[in-house]
Parts: sequence; C-alpha cells; structure tokens
Amino acid sequence: MATSMVVPAMTDLYYGNNDWIVFAASGFMCGGLALACALATRGPMPTFNKRFGFLLVNVLWLVFSLVGAVPLYLSELNLSFAQALFESISAITTTGSTVISGLDKAPQGILIWRSLLCWLGGIGIVALGLFILPLLRVGGMTFFRMESSDTASDRPFARLASFTRAFVAIYVVMTIACTIAFDFAGMTHFDAVNHAMSAVATGGFSTHDASFGYFGDNVALLWIATFFLILGSLPFSVMILLAVRGRMDILYDPQIRVFIGYLCAISLAVGIYHHIHSGVSLHIALSHSFFNMTSILSTGGFASDDYTLWGPFVVVVAFFATFMGGCSGSTAGGIKAYRFVIVYNVVKTGLRKLIYPDAVYPVRYGVQVVDAETIRNVFLFLSCFIALWIAGSLAMSAMGYDFLTATSGVATSLANVGPGVGPIIGPAGNFSTISDPALYLLSLMMLLGRLEILTVLVLLMPLFWRS
Amino acid sequence: MATSMVVPAMTDLYYGNNDWIVFAASGFMCGGLALACALATRGPMPTFNKRFGFLLVNVLWLVFSLVGAVPLYLSELNLSFAQALFESISAITTTGSTVISGLDKAPQGILIWRSLLCWLGGIGIVALGLFILPLLRVGGMTFFRMESSDTASDRPFARLASFTRAFVAIYVVMTIACTIAFDFAGMTHFDAVNHAMSAVATGGFSTHDASFGYFGDNVALLWIATFFLILGSLPFSVMILLAVRGRMDILYDPQIRVFIGYLCAISLAVGIYHHIHSGVSLHIALSHSFFNMTSILSTGGFASDDYTLWGPFVVVVAFFATFMGGCSGSTAGGIKAYRFVIVYNVVKTGLRKLIYPDAVYPVRYGVQVVDAETIRNVFLFLSCFIALWIAGSLAMSAMGYDFLTATSGVATSLANVGPGVGPIIGPAGNFSTISDPALYLLSLMMLLGRLEILTVLVLLMPLFWRS
Repeated sequence: MATSMVVPAMTDLYYGNNDWIVFAASGFMCGGLALACALATRGPMPTFNKRFGFLLVNVLWLVFSLVGAVPLYLSELNLSFAQALFESISAITTTGSTVISGLDKAPQGILIWRSLLCWLGGIGIVALGLFILPLLRVGGMTFFRMESSDTASDRPFARLASFTRAFVAIYVVMTIACTIAFDFAGMTHFDAVNHAMSAVATGGFSTHDASFGYFGDNVALLWIATFFLILGSLPFSVMILLAVRGRMDILYDPQIRVFIGYLCAISLAVGIYHHIHSGVSLHIALSHSFFNMTSILSTGGFASDDYTLWGPFVVVVAFFATFMGGCSGSTAGGIKAYRFVIVYNVVKTGLRKLIYPDAVYPVRYGVQVVDAETIRNVFLFLSCFIALWIAGSLAMSAMGYDFLTATSGVATSLANVGPGVGPIIGPAGNFSTISDPALYLLSLMMLLGRLEILTVLVLLMPLFWRS
Repeated sequence: MATSMVVPAMTDLYYGNNDWIVFAASGFMCGGLALACALATRGPMPTFNKRFGFLLVNVLWLVFSLVGAVPLYLSELNLSFAQALFESISAITTTGSTVISGLDKAPQGILIWRSLLCWLGGIGIVALGLFILPLLRVGGMTFFRMESSDTASDRPFARLASFTRAFVAIYVVMTIACTIAFDFAGMTHFDAVNHAMSAVATGGFSTHDASFGYFGDNVALLWIATFFLILGSLPFSVMILLAVRGRMDILYDPQIRVFIGYLCAISLAVGIYHHIHSGVSLHIALSHSFFNMTSILSTGGFASDDYTLWGPFVVVVAFFATFMGGCSGSTAGGIKAYRFVIVYNVVKTGLRKLIYPDAVYPVRYGVQVVDAETIRNVFLFLSCFIALWIAGSLAMSAMGYDFLTATSGVATSLANVGPGVGPIIGPAGNFSTISDPALYLLSLMMLLGRLEILTVLVLLMPLFWRS
C-alpha cells in the first residue's frame, strides 16, 4: 500500500499539483509503520487455524482501509476523518460511493488514488473469495468447492501459485484492454485509465460528478463499460480454469447463467419501460438501461443518467436490484447469483416435500447435490444480511434521514453497489452531505458486506474468543 | 355465511336503511346456491389426505370471500366488483384495508357486515392455524406440535370437540368484554360492537374514516383497544389450555415473550421519539405509540393519528413492523414471532458452527429441539414471503404506483395488517383510489398471506395435480 502511493505522487508531480507531498509523506509514514510492525513481530508464522483466519481477514481489511484513508484525510480536499475513511473503505470494498463533490476539478493524484484503491480492493476481494473464504467455509459456492468435484487429489494449495499468477495476469489484461477500449471510444487517457480500473473492479468511482453522464449519449462507452462490468462480475475461477486448463465445461456453472439471465431480463424490462414511458428511442433507452442496470447488478455503481426519474417501476427495480449482486469469486458484492440458485431449489424441493413429506428430494446446484452445510450458510447469510439492513435503516432514520435514503443507503453499502435511491444519495447525488456518524455506520456496512458478513459476525461470538 | 347475513339485514331494518333488501336477497341467493351444491354432491365424505386438505383450505377461503363480496357489490355504495371483492377479502383475512371513503355516513348494515366478516374470518383463521395447518405441516409451531411434547397419546382429534368449544367461548367472551369496555369508555353502542369485533379479530375495520382518530385523545379507548389487540395476537392454544386444563406453564412459550418484548420495545422507542421530536406530552405520546404500533404488530391496522408524520424514524419502523406480526395460532398475520425465535437460534448456532464445524449445536425453541423440517419450513415461508413481496411491488410499480405505495401496499396485504405507508394508503389514507387491477393483485396477496403462503403455492406445483 505504501509503495503504491508512488503512483498518485508521480501523477500529481506530472500534473503539477502540490498534493504529491501528501502522498510521499503518507507513503513514508505508512511504510515506516509497517516496517516497524514487521520487525517487532519477527518470528515463525503462527499456525493457521480458522479463528486465526477470521481475525486476519478482518484486521487486514481494517488496516487497508485506514492506510488508504491517510492521504485522503491529509489532502487539500478538507475531508473530515469520517469522510476520508468512508471514501477509502468505499474504494477498497469496490463500492464506489463518494463523499467528494467537484470531482471534475479534484487533483489528479487523489482521483488516481481512489481508482487504484478500488483496483487493489478488487484483487483483494477475489483472492479472499477464491483462496481464503472457502477455507473458512464462508461464501459457499466458490473455486475449490467446484474443483473438488473433478478429482479428489486436486486440493487447495496444489496449484495455488499457478492460479494466482493466472488470476493477476487476467486482471491486468482485462484492465489494459478496458483502458484501450475507453481510449478509442473517446475518453481522455487519464479518464480511460481511471474508469478502466474502476470498471474491472466493479467499483464505480468516476473522475466526474456526473459519472458516465459526463460523456452524454456516447453509446460505445456505455457498452464497453457494460461488457467489462459483466466480466468483472463473473467468477474468476472460471476464467482461471479457462486460461490454465482450457476447460470450457466450467462455463455451465449455473450462477453464470442465472446472473446473465436476470441481468438481461431486468435491463430489457427497464429499457423497454423507459422507451415507452419517456419516449426515448429504443436504441438509446436500451444502451442506458443495460449500462445502469449492469452497474447496479455487477455492484459497479456507475450511472449515465438519473434513472430514478424514468418512472416508479425503475425506482423499485433499482432498489431491489441493489441487493442482488453478481457471481461468487468475482469482484461483485451483494447476495449473489449462486445463493438465488440454492434458495430457488430449496423452495422447489420444500414445496414438493409438503405434498410428499417422506419422499427424498435432494437440493441441487447444477448437477451437484448441495450439502446441508452450504444450505445452512446461505440462509445464515441471508438472515444476517436482512437483519443488518433493517437495523442499519432504523439507525439511519433515527439520525433523521428519510425512508429512501436510509433504506437504500444501507442496502447499497451492504451490497457494495455505490449509489442508492432518492434525491440525496441516488444516481444523481452523492454522500457529501451525509453526517459523520452516518458515514461511520455506512462504512461498517460496506466492510460487513465485503467480508460476506459472517466473517465479521463470528468475531462477536463469545465462543470465538474462548481459548 | 348466508344465515349470518340476517345480522346486517336486521341492522339496516332497525336503522331504516334500504340496504336490508340487498342482504336478504344475497342471503337467499347464497344460501340457495350452497344448498343446491350440498344436495348435488351428497354422498360419503371423501377420504381426507394432505392434497385434499390443501385444496379444501384454498377453495373454502375463496368461496367465503366471494360470498362476502356479494352484498357489498349489490349495496348502494356503488363499488366495482374488484372493490367489493377486495373489501370482502380484506375482512375475511382480518386485514382491515378498506376501499370505502365516507364510512361515517355509510349504511349501518354494511358496517356491521364488514365487522362480522372480520370476526368470522378471525374464527376461521384460528381454526385453520390450530386444527388444519398442523395436519398439513405448514405454519409450524402451533397447538398440536406443542401438545405432542406432553404425552404421546395426546394426538390431534382426541379432544378436538372440547378445544373447539373452549376456543369459541373464549372468542365470544373476549368480544363481549371488549364491547362493554369500549361502551364504558365513551363509544356509542354501535361503534363499540363494531370496533370490538374488529379488534378481537385483529382486523382493523372502523366505522369512521379517521379510524380511532375520530375519538381524539380518548386515552382509555386507546389502551382498551391495545389490550384486546394484544390478546387477539396471542396463541389461542395457550388460552384454551389455560381454560380447559388450568395449565400455566404453557405461558412460557418463547413466542409470547418475544412478541410482547418487541411490541414494548418498538412502542416505547416510537413513543419517546414522538415525545422528543414533536413535543407531545410523554403520556399522550406513549398512548398513541402503543396503540398504533400494537395495531401494526398485531396486524390489526387501526390508527389514531397519521404516525407517518411523526418523523422519518417512525416511517421506517412502521414499514418494517408491517412484516413482523403476532403469534402463531392467533388471528394475527405476518411473519410471526416464533419464526423470529427459530431464525435467531439458527443464526446463533450457525455462527458457532463456523468456528467449530464438527461440534453439534441443536437449534432450540424454548427447551424443545426444533426438527429439520420445521426449520426448513420457516425458511421456505420467509423465502416465498420475500419473493412475493418483491414480485408484487414490481407489479404495483409497473401499474404506476410510487415506491412507498407499491412496496408497503404489498407488504401490508401479505402480512394482513391494513394500512401501508405513504400519502395514498398510509394511516391517513385508504385504498379507494387504487385501480381495479391493483386491487386484484393486493387481494391475492391478502389471501396468500392469510393461508401462510405455502398452502397456496403448493397448488402451483405440477406434482400436486399428478394422480
């Protein structure tokens, strides 16, 4: 993190902004602290167990967030500490909500730092989802679970190195490809780099207050972004397997079909509704609806227009879509497609069992039978997600925020989407007017959502801390 | 149903309204049809099995609703068929949403018919919850389940007759007590009878457009209504066991403590917030908050004030409270307290299992261990409840209704509460301006909610219809 601050420092130097000093100083300070910690705690690695894993993940994300906030807090933007922390957590969790108004005139170093945090957060979250959460048995239907079905010998650490290399290579190639595409379609180099890093990480930070609205009806840009947001929401395990082994059969993963299915259904419905309701040409309406709905469902959070003005149907769709999310093992957040597959199959078999209680109907995910533990964890996650959403909404409304701001603000944070619904934090607004206590609450929700909730909640169990 | 139309007919005759003819005619028509059906299908009872049970329950409620709608449709109120059906279903499901504006001037026969339908619906739903749903293994934690723990020989039909007598006696005594209390506290005889029938059934129909707001700050009325709404939300099994066997230990049923617990917590929070936020005296604020929050949580649906104007916190509380509901085996609807108990314990044991995957932590309900089937049915119900809520909200918004009206309208219908949130169908509004297609949708939601959803959804399974 400290070394990566070289990038914004160089950027600010190049553009002649004074903030390069902030990044240089922050880099030395954070790097020094990290070095001191490393030296002070030298010694053999502690043995890895589940409790250590849970603690490690939580502490890692907290430290990343704090370090990311340092230069934002010290910069010339005059952010409060709560705002700087919120912005940093929003970046690292690839949420993309911003407290900064006046992005168009913000120093380039800050802009690239936000995009970079987002991009690094994307790597972090994919690594977490692919390599760590499966070991902790949270987050369910991921890489190694699917792997375990091909051969029994094929266990976690066997090909870890080649998988990691493949993943980083794919991620970098995707970012470069996206940058070039944006560049060709009309963005400046600087905008292209920033939006590409943000799109691939399904983050949603823009360099303009109007987000993609700045580029007007540039349909090419909308479709390029849509394409890379979708790529970023697909399980990287699938892309790794494609790259490393050339296996195509893994594409039949049900969550991919379900995700692409609801993404197309929702985007089409909204596009056609917008076309009929507002009289926009079908071509333009569909481009904007696919872009904006993909932004929500991939938990990207860009916006090309204030879609909450397209009619009440779109408000309700956007609200519920905020919860849905992409695929497991990607940079997307939210409830995620594989959980819908499992819940749907649990309901289907459950209704059958009401008719014939003694018959055996296994719950399936594709061709695999889903074990009881996975089912339990899905409902565990959903129960906690909804409980946190309700508790957070009550707290936000007690702080004086209206119904839509309170409920959609917490939902968009928990699902790491970005914009909420309503005039304050909707696609045309931002979080700059939100009070510090509310920002702390939403920051907590972003972290909870990003770490799949249960990873954080186990720390609250007294059992966890018993020796 | 046909004979019970004598009551409104007599009422209208007494007050000199022409509508008595409508009730007399409807009574003869429906009675004649029923007699004809009965004669046409004479013969031995078909053998009772689960599929027959499911079908019976669905058809019964549909027929009740249609018969209840006949006099409303034919009355001088000029309701459309959709409106009459909605009003009838709202009554029979003890929801209490109304499409009638100008209740204060409506003929007394219509008013008493609405209250009577509500009251009969209350009997129907308790009978369903106590005697039929447990046989179909839907609706979970009810009477016979709890019974089965005392002695194995104590199976369903053994003491059915004495339980039924005890239940009807308790219900009638409660209604009479409530009527007398309302009468003493200042209502007219007619108002007292109507509100008592509606309160005991947790229905929520009033004889005034302003509901309990008509009686101003008559605190005695508010607390009497609160008391009887709470009584109506407690499991009748508990009251039956108290009456028939004098057993007190059953009062330790966890759902009762949880229901009373969240009812008091929410009412206190809202009352104190209202006191601070609006400057109303604490005494008055608490009286109104207990009354209105109990109205929502018991799924009664009276209102003494437009509590959505008390501040954003109350709007969010009212919205989420709409989903919660009372106890199983009562006239209350919604998700219900016992499901929260089970979900809470599933989450608690689930988080423990994340730390020690191989340890055994049974999920408990009080001292009893909850079986896997009950847990599955709880999550089955919750999944379907949420899915229906989302689907219904999308449909309502596609018909042009705003976010709050769409989402709270479907929620209040599914949970059989009564009022929604927002200016149209909130506590100060009613459903008179809602279009016919939307009324059909909401009517369906009320029926689904009342029959615990799964009872209706099984009919959609192709498996159900296979010979």
